[in-house]
Amino acid sequence: MPPPLPKAQAAQIRTLGQKKQREERGLFTVEGRKSVLELARSGFALQTLVCTEPFWTENGRFFDGKKCEVFICSQKDLESISQFNSADAALAVSAIPPQSPPRQLSGLTLALDRISDPGNLGTILRTADWFGLNHLLASENTVDFYNPKVLQASMGSFCRVAVSYVNLADYLKSAGQPVMAAHRDGAPVHAFAFPKDCVLVLGSESHGISPALMELCQKSVGIPSFGGAESLNVAATAAIFCDNYRRATASK
Amino acid sequence: MPPPLPKAQAAQIRTLGQKKQREERGLFTVEGRKSVLELARSGFALQTLVCTEPFWTENGRFFDGKKCEVFICSQKDLESISQFNSADAALAVSAIPPQSPPRQLSGLTLALDRISDPGNLGTILRTADWFGLNHLLASENTVDFYNPKVLQASMGSFCRVAVSYVNLADYLKSAGQPVMAAHRDGAPVHAFAFPKDCVLVLGSESHGISPALMELCQKSVGIPSFGGAESLNVAATAAIFCDNYRRATASK
Repeated sequence: MPPPLPKAQAAQIRTLGQKKQREERGLFTVEGRKSVLELARSGFALQTLVCTEPFWTENGRFFDGKKCEVFICSQKDLESISQFNSADAALAVSAIPPQSPPRQLSGLTLALDRISDPGNLGTILRTADWFGLNHLLASENTVDFYNPKVLQASMGSFCRVAVSYVNLADYLKSAGQPVMAAHRDGAPVHAFAFPKDCVLVLGSESHGISPALMELCQKSVGIPSFGGAESLNVAATAAIFCDNYRRATASK
Repeated sequence: MPPPLPKAQAAQIRTLGQKKQREERGLFTVEGRKSVLELARSGFALQTLVCTEPFWTENGRFFDGKKCEVFICSQKDLESISQFNSADAALAVSAIPPQSPPRQLSGLTLALDRISDPGNLGTILRTADWFGLNHLLASENTVDFYNPKVLQASMGSFCRVAVSYVNLADYLKSAGQPVMAAHRDGAPVHAFAFPKDCVLVLGSESHGISPALMELCQKSVGIPSFGGAESLNVAATAAIFCDNYRRATASK
């Protein structure tokens, strides 16, 4: 059985809840049985695994051959290093891989402008994964991909969907792709002829799409409304657009 | 200017964060500028308004003729009675109206089975409102409609969308409506001929649809998947189904 978690290391892990710490040390944490196992199967480089004895007995074999330190701790100690109110069996520390935006975009690319809620970004990653989009763009002021709440809401999809943080206006100017804005007053999405390759900009719920970015959008597309709500949640909007894109381009 | 908020009343308001207290006293709280103003415009009976001086100066006229007590308090005092980390200008206490399920369902009715996350229920209310569905069904173990996090995520849509908490299996047995299950292995929703009036059951993300309820579903309908995610978030699923229903029945 692996050794217990040293106190100094526990304190180090706990501070990875802060973005500044993650950036300085190039590390992030993943919590929960399902997400930790997805991480082990993925290409991410595992540095440390902290887990309960039952988790190790059941899943230790998935970490064979991985160059990672393993520590056993009680459920209570796991809670003390967790970023959540309830911890679940395992926590992993992993290296943040270098990120550079792809040279060439293909298929549907979502471009997220100032999305600040971590639950929304996590849900969008999960939705993108469902629809087979493996790369998103985000403005530099969008919530951090490695925020523990983002990773949790993604339900493991963070292993399969990457996000490039860029100056969206600069990047899209030279991307050579049709750029559309998701906007409530846009042309109805049901009749929209999606190009096979295109970028869809989704704006912040409180501020909408930045003016500089809106200028780059050749078209606005919207989801027909039938009721009283002023707007849809941004993750719900993303889901509806992905579904419509897949439907429209299924036979292309 | 209205009087300051008495301490005893502040304590009473704070406890309405608990479901038991809401049920016993038949009251709930609504927080934030936008939601409080939507509440004032709605048919809900306002009992108490607690707000900052600037909010009252700007919006006091919307409460003319309302039989509600008004108290002024500082931003700091508002935070002390809030259920959230940051409070926003106003908090209202309102009476929970009596609820009985409608005699006759019409259009698309979402039936939520064991939805436990308040953010998901709130987002579903907002989506239902966008698509003009003003009534949902929910199992008795679904999260409480008046949970402050549900109301907040609904962004004011709780004023226009009602939820009836019922024994779903019993209710749907005698509802006389076609009942469908949202299920990942179901027939593709893009080719599904939605009846104009129908019920769609959405299950819990961790437990799926209860077996007793699944037996009542005449069909399973699913959202085509193209990637690695095992499932979609339940609020994202609801949004995609509502959009597909409106599209399929637009000309009926």
